[in-house]
Amino acid sequence: MPPVDSPAVVDLLAVLAYAELTAFDRLAEDSRLAPTLGGRAALARMAAAEIGHHGRLTDRLTELGVDPAQAMAPFVSALDAFHEGTRPSNWLEGLVKAYVGDGLASDFYREIAGFLPEPDRALVLDVLADTGHADFAVREVRAAIKADRRVPGRLSLWGRRLVGEAMTQSQAVIAEHDGLAELIISGTGDLGGVARLIGRITDAHTKRMKALGLNP
Amino acid sequence: MPPVDSPAVVDLLAVLAYAELTAFDRLAEDSRLAPTLGGRAALARMAAAEIGHHGRLTDRLTELGVDPAQAMAPFVSALDAFHEGTRPSNWLEGLVKAYVGDGLASDFYREIAGFLPEPDRALVLDVLADTGHADFAVREVRAAIKADRRVPGRLSLWGRRLVGEAMTQSQAVIAEHDGLAELIISGTGDLGGVARLIGRITDAHTKRMKALGLNP
Repeated sequence: MPPVDSPAVVDLLAVLAYAELTAFDRLAEDSRLAPTLGGRAALARMAAAEIGHHGRLTDRLTELGVDPAQAMAPFVSALDAFHEGTRPSNWLEGLVKAYVGDGLASDFYREIAGFLPEPDRALVLDVLADTGHADFAVREVRAAIKADRRVPGRLSLWGRRLVGEAMTQSQAVIAEHDGLAELIISGTGDLGGVARLIGRITDAHTKRMKALGLNP
Repeated sequence: MPPVDSPAVVDLLAVLAYAELTAFDRLAEDSRLAPTLGGRAALARMAAAEIGHHGRLTDRLTELGVDPAQAMAPFVSALDAFHEGTRPSNWLEGLVKAYVGDGLASDFYREIAGFLPEPDRALVLDVLADTGHADFAVREVRAAIKADRRVPGRLSLWGRRLVGEAMTQSQAVIAEHDGLAELIISGTGDLGGVARLIGRITDAHTKRMKALGLNP
């Protein structure tokens, strides 16, 4: 287990902190695609939860004697590229991204949090646990599928694009941060462990796509 | 004092609820103008507070047996027009709008809340009290003024434009809602009372502009 203030721990807190800030940004932007005021408020509430998490993570970085902005800087371009590459063109795409994209990211960070020392493991797990606005997205997407049979095909493709972009950008991040790569390899034990980790994340993604009524 | 579920009470809760939703929207959008990640997060936190207030107000509308979306609908165009007419073109304008615009709106709603029966008076006052991220805006604007002496002139003009648009749109809202107009007139006692109410709001605005280092 790495020491509390090792570069890998700081990197993980920092990438997650910036991920939460961009998630706020994009959910807030996508909320404007909502066809109803209720839908707009629902996505805005999801955004608000993310900025709360961001604050907890940057507070912890400060506590570790690290400047949050400086720690986040190396992750800005990869995460921005993810969002640029997956800009929803309508409300349903926005909802699928909020549910599927957030789920993927949470699973990934949750797996890695298991390799962290305390108190950061508990902090990351706690931040990730507090989202729970998912029911809303599931309900809306399922209703749209009932109303228009062309919807599932399009949104299934969109879901696959989200995974592809997420994989591309997370590989880029890990490749550029030796500490993170080592944390994952040593945490999982070996490359077989890494493969099983990816397997678990993929399985959970498949379940989420099915929950929405989509083909994984 | 009007009855708890009078149209004027519902109107006031509804206009404030929609105001909080649009405030979320615009603060979130304006946060992207921030030159630093810290500034971006600060404005995002202000946005998050607003969406929390929105939820408390729509919950109360639901409790009164009113559909929040339907109750907010008559106020959408005036509030959207205010934001369209005051879209900040840079970070400092965004900060001044967050501080001065929010302050103006809060003062206005707080005055009217005094005419409401309980529990809505307490709800509105409580929602309005919980902002308090103002220090950040004041600090940033004052620092910018120190660094560039052309800043105060431009931002002072901007502050006046914010007041002008706010007056125009609030008059339009009140003119179209007899219940609100009556609430204000009967609450203040007479037209002299209305004039004093406007005077108090204007005075507070002047103080805020001066706190930023700007000419009211």
